[in-house]
Formats: sequence, structure tokens, C-alpha cells
Amino acid sequence: MQEQPFPDTSSRESTDTGGGLDYSAFGARLEVPAINRLMSIPSEQPEVLSLAAGFTDNAVLPHELVSDVVARLCREGSPKDALQYGTTQGRKGLRDLTARFVASYEGEKPEAILADRTFITNGSQQALFLAMRVLCDPGDVVFVENPTYFVFLSMLQGMGVEPVGIPVTEDGSIDGAAFDALLRRMEVDGRKARTKAVYVMGYYANPSSRCMSLEDKIVLARTLRTHRMRIPVIEDAAYRELAFGRPWSVPGVLSLDAFEGFPLLYLGTYTKPFATGLKVGYGITNHTEWMQKMLFAKGNQDFGSAHFPQAIVAQVLRDGLYPGFVRDLGLHYGAKAGLLDSVLRAEGLDRMGWRWARPEGGLLFWLKAPAGVDTREGSGFYQACLKHQVIYVPGNLCFANGSPSEYIRLSIGALPNEKLEEAARRLCDAARNL
Amino acid sequence: MQEQPFPDTSSRESTDTGGGLDYSAFGARLEVPAINRLMSIPSEQPEVLSLAAGFTDNAVLPHELVSDVVARLCREGSPKDALQYGTTQGRKGLRDLTARFVASYEGEKPEAILADRTFITNGSQQALFLAMRVLCDPGDVVFVENPTYFVFLSMLQGMGVEPVGIPVTEDGSIDGAAFDALLRRMEVDGRKARTKAVYVMGYYANPSSRCMSLEDKIVLARTLRTHRMRIPVIEDAAYRELAFGRPWSVPGVLSLDAFEGFPLLYLGTYTKPFATGLKVGYGITNHTEWMQKMLFAKGNQDFGSAHFPQAIVAQVLRDGLYPGFVRDLGLHYGAKAGLLDSVLRAEGLDRMGWRWARPEGGLLFWLKAPAGVDTREGSGFYQACLKHQVIYVPGNLCFANGSPSEYIRLSIGALPNEKLEEAARRLCDAARNL
Repeated sequence: MQEQPFPDTSSRESTDTGGGLDYSAFGARLEVPAINRLMSIPSEQPEVLSLAAGFTDNAVLPHELVSDVVARLCREGSPKDALQYGTTQGRKGLRDLTARFVASYEGEKPEAILADRTFITNGSQQALFLAMRVLCDPGDVVFVENPTYFVFLSMLQGMGVEPVGIPVTEDGSIDGAAFDALLRRMEVDGRKARTKAVYVMGYYANPSSRCMSLEDKIVLARTLRTHRMRIPVIEDAAYRELAFGRPWSVPGVLSLDAFEGFPLLYLGTYTKPFATGLKVGYGITNHTEWMQKMLFAKGNQDFGSAHFPQAIVAQVLRDGLYPGFVRDLGLHYGAKAGLLDSVLRAEGLDRMGWRWARPEGGLLFWLKAPAGVDTREGSGFYQACLKHQVIYVPGNLCFANGSPSEYIRLSIGALPNEKLEEAARRLCDAARNL
Repeated sequence: MQEQPFPDTSSRESTDTGGGLDYSAFGARLEVPAINRLMSIPSEQPEVLSLAAGFTDNAVLPHELVSDVVARLCREGSPKDALQYGTTQGRKGLRDLTARFVASYEGEKPEAILADRTFITNGSQQALFLAMRVLCDPGDVVFVENPTYFVFLSMLQGMGVEPVGIPVTEDGSIDGAAFDALLRRMEVDGRKARTKAVYVMGYYANPSSRCMSLEDKIVLARTLRTHRMRIPVIEDAAYRELAFGRPWSVPGVLSLDAFEGFPLLYLGTYTKPFATGLKVGYGITNHTEWMQKMLFAKGNQDFGSAHFPQAIVAQVLRDGLYPGFVRDLGLHYGAKAGLLDSVLRAEGLDRMGWRWARPEGGLLFWLKAPAGVDTREGSGFYQACLKHQVIYVPGNLCFANGSPSEYIRLSIGALPNEKLEEAARRLCDAARNL
């Protein structure tokens, strides 16, 4: 029993001054994200197993490593700066080591990945927010993959910005001809002129776990160039380090000649591949003025991210421990992905008409239900899963226009193996008894 | 020499894709804050001593305490959640302990300070940003003290929101009659209807180091009420814990009957009074709906602050160590304030016509120059100080309309005693040789 140094106030009554506030247009647009309802289910019903949450696996969080690094950072005689304020752009040593780390991937051009165009954020999410905030007004348009990261869609909704899906073929590749036709239509309806950016995930995308091929990236750049749209291209590489085997060999947009002349922003993070609790993300750009705008916005917002987590990550990188750490992590998640895949197959989910590709990195499975099965919140399948005490992310939340409605996203991150197996069996039971 | 695991890219050349981006209205409004130029001087000219920077004193950062707490949080057998994601609202244990801590101040009403209306942010700055973002559109108005926190003015400038100073008397108290007259004028010119919030600092304000009296707070509430303006009142208490002796005895707005029926937001932090590198701040409100809006906005922005620093602070609170820590910290800064005050007097700055009150808490001195001395960036006094290798914050940056121009802000936070003495002597030399 811990000492309670202050009087307990949590159970007291108080008067809530409710309603009636005059919100900004932004405030008025903010609604309960559908995902919030979903994510709150396990805390209210602890017997429910969540394949929805994007948490990482507690078993592979670097507790000893962080404890050791902190002891060294705080030791008598160390530079006394880890617990002091940093700068808005972020710790210099971390920016140096981050640029070197990203540049160390096969095919990357070190001269395109510079520490002085790198900035540290509260997870890569904040870099994405800053990018949108300085580029987009209400009524503007942003191109996204379809499906895409649902929190990004929620962010755009709050900003009054319209997401438009980049057309893809059946296998998920960018469909250059359809994209070209779409851009012609958008020129006519006026949306082309309002299009401010393109947002793509090049590596083990959320939710599809797909990687972009070199051809995908070239088609994207070429089609935009054909339409004289040299708009900012944002590549979210949040899952890049989580390769189950060899890292995906296609370089990021910063290093590709195809994107010469485009304002570019590459987003990475130490959150998922190292420690979610440290929440250290980063952006690397080729456009100094855009970065300055994002940093001024960040200055207004928080005056720089917490410096202590940055110092911890920088030390791990400096010690040369990071590449090995993420390699082991990829093996760990690869084994979990193999487990989930084999349970789903052993339970016969494929024979029930469900389709999925076993991912080669990341934390997510993206499954397509058989024709006629609706997976949306409140649907028959959703209710069946709740009855079997398992939850997933309904795929429609990940599409720019909220449909199609036959996909689900499963995460291998949070649950330990035995619970992951059990959750997979429950999901298959729900599918079987539908 | 540390191992360098990645190729060094920092010195390579690269092509910057410059200019020409189509920024949002927000992005277009973002300019180099005047303060950025100032703050960059010491890194470019290391011989310059900065009385400008708002850093805290490295000597009293809790290195041993944090190292000890981290070792316990990461130890085998501990709950494995400190390095995992938290929630957008923030760690439950920290919110509980924070509400209890704030409620433990003399005169506070525990039933008005609730953990479930407390949310954790990246410093109290982010809570302020979120509050403004969900309340204010361009063209709106916010009341501020005059002088006020200059970063807040920069934030409003970016948002296109007009700061209007609350009229005060010679001694800095709120001038109820003048405030009343101002509100009448603003009713006529239409600005009253656009006024969305009031922002005040109740404890050792930045930059004035003034505390609000009970009378100040009552006059504020009564005047607004007379004009039927039940608008949100935001009290920034970032320096409250830094009392050099007995804490200021006036309760926060949440506990005052005078503010019954107003939407209220109290901002606090563990940044300045514990560790700036952890950057853990918080907001406590009486208005659930407003908080939900701020949390949705935070969800879009960063999906929750870094969880590990929260776990560290929570453990320090749980161990009962925090009240003693801030008491000792207040004594430390009180001694530094005494030192600065005595050097300025020994050097005869008061006899040169400068006026200041020795603060009773916080990190700042607010000095008024003799008539005719302009302290703005580039002024004669400013140049003299640069020549004597010392810098300060020009006071005009802290006023809603950029004037008057005869104040300066000095910080006792960052410099160790001998450098603080030296900086004070240089400042007095500059004043003397003007």
C-alpha cells in the first residue's frame, strides 16, 4: 500500500458547468471518433480480447535497456542536459543519429537525408498534424491511399479537409490510368486546385500491411508531374523498421529521383519499433521553409517535445544497439504473425471465404470477408464477435469515403501468444456461427 | 569517443526544394517569432550570458530521483506499462495524484478539482493551445493580462486572434471601472461578441512575477458577469509551485465562488517545478464537454503525451516526495532571486532610475527602465547589452499591442550563481554607460 500524501478527491461531488460553449469551426467539427467507442470496450469488459488496439507487445519493451541508459544519463558527471528543456526542432544528437539511421537503409541517398532538415515530434502523428496544419484550410483536398490510417482521416475531418482516395488496382498497386482520369475530373470540378498534399505509407501500411513498390512510387510521381501538381508528398514510414525479415528494399521518397522538385516529408518514429511510452517521432524534409513553418507551429503548440525521451533514444542509437534491437523485434512480430496466420487457417477461416495476405512486416492483418458479410460497427459480424468476446477494427473506418464494408483490421501487437491464439479462435467462431 | 554506427551525412550537400508552397491561412500567418532571434544568440556567441532564456537551473534537476524511479519502474516484476502507450487523457494514477496535489493548497475545494476532469499534456503550453484551438476562429478576441506570456501572444497571432489587455491600475491590479468601460466600447465596436476567453496567470506571472489578489479575481469575475459574459476563464498556474516561502494563499479559479457558472480551465505543470526535460503539464476543468473537445483535438494532434515521463512523475508523487522537492526548489530560487536583487542594487541600478519589485516566487524579474530608455530589440540599451555580452527579453514583446517599450524581463533560472552575478553586473554596466 503506497502512502497517499494528499486527500482523496476522486469520489467527491462537483458541479459541472455543462454545454453552451461557443466553439471554433474546428472545435465544432470535432466529434467522438468511432474508434474511441471501440477502444473503450476492453476496459469496460475485461473478458473481451482486443485485436483492435494498436499497442505494441509489453514483452518486448526495452525495460532493462532504458533503465541502464537512464542510469548513465543521470549519473554524476554526465552532461546535465537530459532533464533540461531541449529545442523546438529537437535534440541535435538525436537528429544526427536519426538521419544516419534512415540513410543506412539500402538505396537511400545520405545527401538527401539531413540532420538539419530533421525535426523531432510527439510520435510521427504530430509531424503529420503539423504538416496538415500549415498546408490545409477547410475545403482543401488531400490524396490518401484507400484504405489509409484512420486517425489521419479523423484529423482531416476535424480540419474540414476532404480525403480523396488514390485509385488502385485489384492487387493494391496505384492505377496510373484511373488516377490520371480522376485528376482530369478534379480539374473540372475545381478540387484539383484545392489539393494540398499526398499522404502515403511506403512500408507495411496501416491497415493493409502493404509496401509500395518502386513502380507505385514512380507512377505516383509521374502522374502528379503530368498534371503539373508539384504538391507536397508525405510518406509515413512508421512501420518501416518492423520488417519480419529483410527490410523492404524500395527507398523512401526523399531518395528517389522521381520525386525531384516535389516538397517531401518523410515521417518515422521510435515509438512502435522501440518504446511506445517514449513517443519519439520525427520528420525529415527537403524543404527548409516548410519545415520552419511546421516548427513555428510546433513552437506555439508545445515549444518542443519532451527532451528526456529524446536523450534516451539518442543514447541507444549512439551505443549502436538500435539496429539489432529492431531486427530482434521484427523476428518477434514475425513469429506472432505466423501464429495468427496459422490459427486462422487451422480454424478454416480461408475455407469460409475470407481472404488475406500474410504480412511481411508491421503489426497488422487486413482481411476481406466473403461477399455479403458486412463488418461495420453494429453489423451482424460485429455483434457476433462481441458475443464471442473479441473485437477488431471495422475496415470501413479506413476508407476515405467510409466504404467498402467487408474488411477488418487485426493487430498482432498487444496480445501475448496464448491470448492472440484464443482471440483468433473466437473470431473464427464468430465467422463460423454467423 | 562513441561508436558511430551509421555513416555521417550531416556535412553532405543536398538540394533544397525551396519556396513556392501554398500554405494554409494558419501557415501563412506563422512568422519568425522575435524571441527566436534572441534565444539563438547565446548558441552563436557563447560568451554572451543570457538572462532571457526561461530554462531552469541544471543544478536542481532531479537526476538521482529520476534515475531511482526509472530503475523501479523498469524492474523485473513491475507492471509493464510505463514504456507502453498511455491514453489521450493521460495516466489515471497521475491524474488522481495531480488533482489531490492541487486540492491540497490552502483554500482549494477538493470537490472542484477532479481527476476525471484532469488531462495530461506536453507541458501546460499544449493545454493552452488546445483550449484556444477549439474555442477561437480568426477574428476572435481573447482577454490577456498586460504584460502577458509572450509565447501565448505568438500563438494568438498564428491563429489570427486578437489579444486585448485587461486594464490595470499603476500597481498592476485589475481596474474594474476601466475594464467596464472597455467592455462597453467593445460592445459597440462588435468585439465583445467575438471575445472567446480570458487568460490570466494567478501565481508569479510570466513576466511580471505578480500574483493575483482575491480582489483581482473577484473584480474580474464580477465585471464579466455584469456584462453577461460567462466566457471561459483560463488560469495559467505554471509557476505556482515556485514560491520562495509560503505559497500564495489565494485559491485558483476552480475553487472560487465568484467564478460559479463560468467554464474554467486551470493549467499546471511539472515542467518548471520538477524537470523541464519531462515536459509533463496538465489542465483541470469544470466543463466536461470542453474537455472532450480538447481531448479529441489532442487525439488528432498526438494521440496522447509520452507515457513514460508521466509514469515517472506519478511515482514521485505517490512516494510523497513532491511537496518537499518543490519546497526546496523554492528556497533555491529564492536565494538566486535575492542574489540578483542584491547585485542590481549594489551596482546602483535603482539609483539609475530603474524600478522593480523583488519577486516572491517564480523565475523572473520585471524591471522598468527610467523615462526615455527604450529597451526594444535593436534599441540603444539593447545594443549596449549585446556589447556587454548579456541579453534580456525586451518587455514590449509581452504586451498585447507591443508597447510600452521601457520594460525588460530577466530570468534567474538557467545561470549558476557566479554567472548570474556576472550577467547582472554586465547589465548594470550597459545601463550605466548608455
